[in-house]
Amino acid sequence: MKPDFQDTIVAVSTPPGAGGIAVLRVSGSRASDVVQACTRGQALPPCRKASKRTWQHPDTLEVLDDVVVTLYAEGASYTGELTAEIACHGSVYVQRVVLQSCIDAGARLAQPGEFTQRAFLNGRLDLAQAEGVGDLIASETAAAHRLALAQMKGSLSSALSTLREQLIAFAALIELENDFGEEDVEFADRLKLSQSVQELQGEVRRLRETFSAGQAIREGVTAVIAGRPNAGKSTVLNALLAEDRAIVSDIPGTTRDTIEATLVIEGVKFTLVDTAGIREASDAIEQLGVARSLEAVSRASVLVYVWDAAMTQPAEVGEDLAQLRNPSVPLIAVANKMDLHPYDKSDNYSGFGVSPQEFTPVSARAGMNLGLLKQRLFEFGVGEVPPRGSAVVTQARHVESLSQAAQALDRVAAGLSSGLSGDLIALDLRQALHHIGEITGEIGTDDLLASIFSSFCIGK
Amino acid sequence: MKPDFQDTIVAVSTPPGAGGIAVLRVSGSRASDVVQACTRGQALPPCRKASKRTWQHPDTLEVLDDVVVTLYAEGASYTGELTAEIACHGSVYVQRVVLQSCIDAGARLAQPGEFTQRAFLNGRLDLAQAEGVGDLIASETAAAHRLALAQMKGSLSSALSTLREQLIAFAALIELENDFGEEDVEFADRLKLSQSVQELQGEVRRLRETFSAGQAIREGVTAVIAGRPNAGKSTVLNALLAEDRAIVSDIPGTTRDTIEATLVIEGVKFTLVDTAGIREASDAIEQLGVARSLEAVSRASVLVYVWDAAMTQPAEVGEDLAQLRNPSVPLIAVANKMDLHPYDKSDNYSGFGVSPQEFTPVSARAGMNLGLLKQRLFEFGVGEVPPRGSAVVTQARHVESLSQAAQALDRVAAGLSSGLSGDLIALDLRQALHHIGEITGEIGTDDLLASIFSSFCIGK
Repeated sequence: MKPDFQDTIVAVSTPPGAGGIAVLRVSGSRASDVVQACTRGQALPPCRKASKRTWQHPDTLEVLDDVVVTLYAEGASYTGELTAEIACHGSVYVQRVVLQSCIDAGARLAQPGEFTQRAFLNGRLDLAQAEGVGDLIASETAAAHRLALAQMKGSLSSALSTLREQLIAFAALIELENDFGEEDVEFADRLKLSQSVQELQGEVRRLRETFSAGQAIREGVTAVIAGRPNAGKSTVLNALLAEDRAIVSDIPGTTRDTIEATLVIEGVKFTLVDTAGIREASDAIEQLGVARSLEAVSRASVLVYVWDAAMTQPAEVGEDLAQLRNPSVPLIAVANKMDLHPYDKSDNYSGFGVSPQEFTPVSARAGMNLGLLKQRLFEFGVGEVPPRGSAVVTQARHVESLSQAAQALDRVAAGLSSGLSGDLIALDLRQALHHIGEITGEIGTDDLLASIFSSFCIGK
Repeated sequence: MKPDFQDTIVAVSTPPGAGGIAVLRVSGSRASDVVQACTRGQALPPCRKASKRTWQHPDTLEVLDDVVVTLYAEGASYTGELTAEIACHGSVYVQRVVLQSCIDAGARLAQPGEFTQRAFLNGRLDLAQAEGVGDLIASETAAAHRLALAQMKGSLSSALSTLREQLIAFAALIELENDFGEEDVEFADRLKLSQSVQELQGEVRRLRETFSAGQAIREGVTAVIAGRPNAGKSTVLNALLAEDRAIVSDIPGTTRDTIEATLVIEGVKFTLVDTAGIREASDAIEQLGVARSLEAVSRASVLVYVWDAAMTQPAEVGEDLAQLRNPSVPLIAVANKMDLHPYDKSDNYSGFGVSPQEFTPVSARAGMNLGLLKQRLFEFGVGEVPPRGSAVVTQARHVESLSQAAQALDRVAAGLSSGLSGDLIALDLRQALHHIGEITGEIGTDDLLASIFSSFCIGK
């Protein structure tokens, strides 16, 4: 049954502030009443026809602005409800009085994301697509934009729908067996069923594995540059940015506070955090800097440890890394100033306690090997980027549901191999279906919806 | 002849930043080519029909967004040119790539105000109306909004048009006389002509006199509160605002820097500037404060001089006012703390060197007579507000033109009374017509246009 919304909502949908024009949206069954009350004496425009109208206050009839009104019929609008879009002059004052006039004419101020929530509740898009809309509006880079657009257009939803269909087909076989259970007939070949479950498990796993790239693309990667004083950390940052973002000098301890800068690699946003040297703090302010560095390292999604190849001993590097390394955070071990101390293939990286994949000799000052450093930042921070338009998991919520579905499938597989009866296996299958359905919102709670849509801006 | 614009312009017309949706405008003969290049394979929507399209980059065909495109035919758009409005998702990134795609498809980024400038050049509105559009977008208060809307809708233009017609009718009479000059016949009765000129002079004067209110409403009024330390200036400010905006204490010299706050009286914005006490600065910082006070007083459009009625002698008030008073700036002389030192009608204001209209006893602390103070702020700062929708002059440019027209009419009057020949009088009449025409842009230069439209935002 179609949801019945008692009220009509209104909001300014364009960005806050003053501009040439602004657009308000009114959605709900009374949208045309609102337009009629504020354009008294003028005909209601036909649907989708952008029509110039004099906008008045519904009670005082004071002229507020010349506007362009466009109506969208129920079932043919973004929300799926009767919708009016009012394009007015973009002054903050005009926006405010036009908004107030809609409220005075019977609309209610919309909550953040309420238009998209109504679109979801009216079946205009599913929950994963709705999240794509939110991500699209928040996107700052090419890769994040591409990912959000694909999700809005249903790339993830359609992959999940295929998975769901396969699960349902599989469940049908099991249920069929149940129906004839009394007769002790196994319609479904248990070996084939086991193979099918393995395939389903594989697909859930593949989807879940896209999350690391999906999250990096959607939220960006925080790469923290750490190391001893005067190792050239700020020079590495500047070389990556190819601009003088951090203050660089020969005096150890120049960077007292953490400095952040943004670098976009292949459309993905990297936040580079330059930190104070992690050793030999000589005064209280510098000690504070060191404490901040360690705090920054704990927030890193990639750790870039920099040392001075010409001055620092392998044992010292090993000592630092014993303190800094976190097994769940990829490490790029940057031997800086390689122009002063060249490395060759015969070097034994293990002396530094780093693997060949981690070991990255550069000279920030001479601009040597910076391409390799960027490449490793991308490899270690983002990983393999799924092909354009393919299904990618971008939200922790999706991963949680996929993990629950995977666990249910594990129980199905175990049940099959231990000869569990079909009706018990069917219970776990339903669990798996339930968790897949949570992602697109076929299954959901009001709490979940509230938490998803409250992160939207007002007017969307 | 209609101006022929070679290029097609594009801009984001909604406020800068991220929101639910954003609107781009493309104006010019190639607007539909731009739409076609970016929606390849999809039909061009009919005019004024809001139509959903997939927006692609014109070269790579990469999908950038789902948008709603509305076309406006030449002669039926804001600019008067073929125009496309593209409503896209409101992320900063989407706005940027959609804008770039229009540029790559052959449009050029618009200059500030260029859409309105084209509307003017295409005769969709005159210059005074165009200035009304700019004012409407900048308006922050009810009165400023009302005034800008009236000007946009042609209130000033129609008054000027009437004036122009009268001038032309008058000129026709004079020219008729010229044609028959040889025959020494006076068709036009010189006495009647003199009366007509007086009426025209009166109308120009009336229009010019609306400027003081027009400017106050459009730009707001700066009221500077000055006086000796501890006179209660900050308490007066706070009482007017009915909130604790300024820090108040009993220690003289508490307000070291000037403090600004905004108060809206009858829809007009008042910027209240609280200053440091103007006497007895005991240290260098306070001396700096006093210098700033005097500088603030010099920028005032209304001076609010406050003294302590219980402590300050009339002679001291007179002494202060001798320093502060500026004959061209209205003065409100506030005798504060009247709860401690009541005044009655028998008091002789002249002891303070102020007129009864200026003399305003209040008690900021006890909230006495604050209504009178607000009323005087409005009377002295704005004056008489012209009736709604009537012609009001809001720009210095308009006053300048009206003054020039008035001078030309003075010469016409002088010429008539001194029996100057009709052809010489006609020259001055043409001057008057010229200056009236400057306001609506019938007469204008490129420099003038550039300076008017450059103050607009981009996208309008």
